[in-house]
Amino acid sequence: MYPNVIKNAIDALKLFPGIGEKTAERLALSLIDMDDDDVEFLSSSLLSLKTKIKNCEKCNVLSDQNICSICSNKLRENNILCVVEDSRSVFLFEKNGVFNGKYFVLNGLISPLDGINPEDIGIDRLLRYIETETFNEIIFAFKPSVEGETTALYIKRILDGFNLKITRLASGIPVGADLEYLDVMTLERALSDRKDIE
Amino acid sequence: MYPNVIKNAIDALKLFPGIGEKTAERLALSLIDMDDDDVEFLSSSLLSLKTKIKNCEKCNVLSDQNICSICSNKLRENNILCVVEDSRSVFLFEKNGVFNGKYFVLNGLISPLDGINPEDIGIDRLLRYIETETFNEIIFAFKPSVEGETTALYIKRILDGFNLKITRLASGIPVGADLEYLDVMTLERALSDRKDIE
Repeated sequence: MYPNVIKNAIDALKLFPGIGEKTAERLALSLIDMDDDDVEFLSSSLLSLKTKIKNCEKCNVLSDQNICSICSNKLRENNILCVVEDSRSVFLFEKNGVFNGKYFVLNGLISPLDGINPEDIGIDRLLRYIETETFNEIIFAFKPSVEGETTALYIKRILDGFNLKITRLASGIPVGADLEYLDVMTLERALSDRKDIE
Repeated sequence: MYPNVIKNAIDALKLFPGIGEKTAERLALSLIDMDDDDVEFLSSSLLSLKTKIKNCEKCNVLSDQNICSICSNKLRENNILCVVEDSRSVFLFEKNGVFNGKYFVLNGLISPLDGINPEDIGIDRLLRYIETETFNEIIFAFKPSVEGETTALYIKRILDGFNLKITRLASGIPVGADLEYLDVMTLERALSDRKDIE
């Protein structure tokens, strides 16, 4: 039905998660009206991303350098480490400029139901990293979930021998949220983690 | 914030109409987990589409050949011509297998408000095409809109000298639609175009 060059582009775009037939058709046909330079840039930058991306040798975040720009930044606090479950979390924190310490990126969270065990997510590498640096606080910034709790508790138990302050992100009511739309777990946590009004 | 290779891919994906920052981020990061071959295919097929696509020399539809597969298909009815406003319409008709004649693709519809005049949409080429072939019916398959009506009437007036049956797609109530959600124009048209029950 479609000429082959269009059909191939549609099939290719459908490889993206969440892009179905209709959207792929729309995107493929929109290429025809784009500038040649833009399509050239699109094609080459997608390939570049895949071929040039690697993991920072220190913190494991996705980077195009051996040591990422965060790890090589001398101006950041180097006594506080934020452990996250994926590079996306680092990009999110950085985008919002809410943290100025160092990061370590695990390869996901422990999830026995999905067959993901402690040895699969790079905890050994995290421990070696902590041993070679001079952190005095480790923050676990995982999503509030069974997997997040499990992973935090598992690592905390190992770190108990070290002289480190170990914290997790506060969980509770999102700022601006309506109480009646909150789930039970969030409400429970907000109640049990309640704070003194100072 | 993002490494350059990710940033470039995000910027490139945002060139697609309807793809914003968040979606571009999601799509770019999903490339990292894709197979190398898939990303290679994606990158090359987008570029191929742009560089190899052309317009059929006879009917003007987007094609990767000089004469498209519809024009070169000897089994199609060659006495009925369906005039459409873009290649998308051809692909839609073909996908649904509802028409077995020939097509001619205009470069859009006449729209004086947008500065698109009859000479901009390839009507001269359509007339030359009709003169060289042996059609006995011309169907205008434009969207029901002021521009669609204007374009159909304009071409019909020119074709009045030819001995041709000239028709347009029926417009009216979509099959399965609820009457109360229809707009006034559709309802009016459905009423004025009412048909005898046979």
